[in-house]
Amino acid sequence: MRIATLARCQAQSVASFTQRPPVKSPLPPRPVAHSPSSAHRRRLLGGLAGGALLAPALKPALAAGAPDTERVLAPEPWTLTPGAPLVASPYGLPGPAEHDVIRRIAKNPPMPGSGSSNTPLADLVGSITPNGLVYERHHAGVPAIDADRHRLAVHGLVRQPLLFTIDDLLRLPSETHVYFLECSGNTASEWRGPSGLPVQFTHGLLSCCEWTGVRLSTLLDETGVDPSAHWVLAEGADGAAMTRSLPLARIVERALVVYAQNGERLRPENGYPLRLFVPGFEGNTHVKWLRRLKLIRAPEMTREETSKYTDLLPDGRARQFVFEMDAKSVITRPSPGHRLSARGYYAISGIAWSGRGRIARVDVSADGGRTWRAARLSGPVRERALTRFEADWRWDGGPAVLQSRAVDATGYVQPTRDALVAARGLNSYYHYNGIQSWRIGADGEVRNA
Amino acid sequence: MRIATLARCQAQSVASFTQRPPVKSPLPPRPVAHSPSSAHRRRLLGGLAGGALLAPALKPALAAGAPDTERVLAPEPWTLTPGAPLVASPYGLPGPAEHDVIRRIAKNPPMPGSGSSNTPLADLVGSITPNGLVYERHHAGVPAIDADRHRLAVHGLVRQPLLFTIDDLLRLPSETHVYFLECSGNTASEWRGPSGLPVQFTHGLLSCCEWTGVRLSTLLDETGVDPSAHWVLAEGADGAAMTRSLPLARIVERALVVYAQNGERLRPENGYPLRLFVPGFEGNTHVKWLRRLKLIRAPEMTREETSKYTDLLPDGRARQFVFEMDAKSVITRPSPGHRLSARGYYAISGIAWSGRGRIARVDVSADGGRTWRAARLSGPVRERALTRFEADWRWDGGPAVLQSRAVDATGYVQPTRDALVAARGLNSYYHYNGIQSWRIGADGEVRNA
Repeated sequence: MRIATLARCQAQSVASFTQRPPVKSPLPPRPVAHSPSSAHRRRLLGGLAGGALLAPALKPALAAGAPDTERVLAPEPWTLTPGAPLVASPYGLPGPAEHDVIRRIAKNPPMPGSGSSNTPLADLVGSITPNGLVYERHHAGVPAIDADRHRLAVHGLVRQPLLFTIDDLLRLPSETHVYFLECSGNTASEWRGPSGLPVQFTHGLLSCCEWTGVRLSTLLDETGVDPSAHWVLAEGADGAAMTRSLPLARIVERALVVYAQNGERLRPENGYPLRLFVPGFEGNTHVKWLRRLKLIRAPEMTREETSKYTDLLPDGRARQFVFEMDAKSVITRPSPGHRLSARGYYAISGIAWSGRGRIARVDVSADGGRTWRAARLSGPVRERALTRFEADWRWDGGPAVLQSRAVDATGYVQPTRDALVAARGLNSYYHYNGIQSWRIGADGEVRNA
Repeated sequence: MRIATLARCQAQSVASFTQRPPVKSPLPPRPVAHSPSSAHRRRLLGGLAGGALLAPALKPALAAGAPDTERVLAPEPWTLTPGAPLVASPYGLPGPAEHDVIRRIAKNPPMPGSGSSNTPLADLVGSITPNGLVYERHHAGVPAIDADRHRLAVHGLVRQPLLFTIDDLLRLPSETHVYFLECSGNTASEWRGPSGLPVQFTHGLLSCCEWTGVRLSTLLDETGVDPSAHWVLAEGADGAAMTRSLPLARIVERALVVYAQNGERLRPENGYPLRLFVPGFEGNTHVKWLRRLKLIRAPEMTREETSKYTDLLPDGRARQFVFEMDAKSVITRPSPGHRLSARGYYAISGIAWSGRGRIARVDVSADGGRTWRAARLSGPVRERALTRFEADWRWDGGPAVLQSRAVDATGYVQPTRDALVAARGLNSYYHYNGIQSWRIGADGEVRNA
């Protein structure tokens, strides 16, 4: 794909936004670190205002033969001496300037270990989430599992119940896929209208990794399955013994028992040493710390599929066993906390995904949904994975409302909030996928208002 | 792709290998941590020897109604109490059992900051390398760059030389791709025959990430290019001012100026805040800490393309400007340090890649290349990216020699070491891509011998 030239934007003013927004937690559980350099960055960017696309003061200095060439190309101090040696980081970490790109806790109910942390989407690009930033949702904290003692039982309506060690699973045929993972409660904050929260808290119960593991069908080839088995019960080894019933026929060729994310073993908070992965399904069905899969006739009606993870409709019925995450998208840059420093060109960037397959198209609006333009899909387009989109935009300095709208391969179109509320009412908590609006003021601030 | 059933292997003995080999550095610069649990694992696996594919002693305990069912499914202690709360890891790390899955230093020349560290390929699966494990090769250490002060100059034979700040680049259209990155010196250890080293040191100057940045052509659209410019000089801001000349026409639509890897900003040791990325080219051309791109008529003949990164052929000529990495593959599991615990089924797993495009096929041999079988490609198959393959194998308990052979989309076939030496002699250091042999003894040990 040949990307658009910026030439047509060159006559416009400089346009930049700061990269490290001062994100605040809605229920601040701990101090939030601010980048010490963001104010400095704003000053720098302010200095560019009114110029061309790039800093006019610097351009002449680079012209061939100009007297300032030597000065501009003179090396900075870090070029003049050897840098740090190799010994420091056998497992590397982000650089010191990235210290505020971290998971943040939105809310921590007063139960031991229960709560969630959010992925810093406003600071991420591409589609892969680094393992250290994958969101968390725990019902009873992170268990400290001895992988040598951990077993996976596959039992119930099978010909031969089996226990698998981790090493058993590691020697079986594996598959590797990039998939998103989203909590069904993601974006619940927006049911009653704009929450004021930044994207880390509105959409940050969302990640995307490369997952490796054994296909469920491979394990069932070993145990055999009784024809009367239509569901499978998955149970975790955490203190909550998190348990869900899943429809066997819909998941058997898609679900994986995974032991690795982004090439390395699962992180403790993401299910080490084993988790179930059901591509496209709501996150809580990807049972972490997986200890057993029981083949059963009908759903067990566990707590997590009766009192939890269901939605009350206006007519009093409950939506239950709503597994697939519907198509959804959000603009991550600019987003609340960012500030547009001047009029002119911006590459609007965001992510789109669908539990039902590939993203077919993303449209972007800068006028609150009155007009739409197709965005570029600027990275890999995969089944049930985050898909990065970008759209060219020129800010004229006036108020604007940025929106994105995903369309998936089944033709499903991400709805407006109004359409969603009309269908589902206001007693729902889960599966909110309405179009998100970011308001840009004349001051350049981006707000969820 | 429907993966093969293991049913045909069930009558065979148990087959497992330990997952945490006691890897040793050839020039040990620091103590190498061993997993405290690997001996324990071996004992466990030893207990399974002579049984069926899965532990026979445990099977009856799971049968419906069997008296031991309660005992086997009784929760482990970590299920009985809440686990660790959410506060500990705003940027998560691998669990404690993974403490020996780290980069290791193969050799560190006695120059400040010079040297390399290797990716632990024997412990990784899939195709993505987590950022904390991406290999390093530095010529003068890791500079501590202030990204607010860092600039990228694009100058030389251009219409309008320009200086870019990081924020300038972040607001331009971006692209995201998964690509491998390989040092041209990777596997140089094997030129004179089997080195005895494990795969972390024979092939570990190799990684694969999702990279995000601005296409080189986008920057040149801004500067304009003089028709006399046929090469581009890339220079890093490290103490070595690492500098390479690159052929403009071959790279202009493919090369990226990247600022992110696996979704987050570049790590300091991987070029923070900017590096050049030339998909498929040898690693040293992906200039880290990139500070300028100068459009020039002909190669500058820098140190890194004359005295370094060239290979002396038998006839006295030098191979120079050999950019693309040829098709290559290696088996990562089992590999030296692993031990096969018993006869029976193994999924042989490895990676293949080519600087010229996609991997078309990988063949695997268990008899030192006398007979070959096609492997499954068990993950994404992408242009110029690591491609995971797997092959079913039954070890009969006798000596075996495992090999893999990659074929890329251009039809290029990975050569034997003998064919490579016949063509290139023994004075070469770089671009070794011979077929690798792992010898398995009757004791189950895997050796590079």
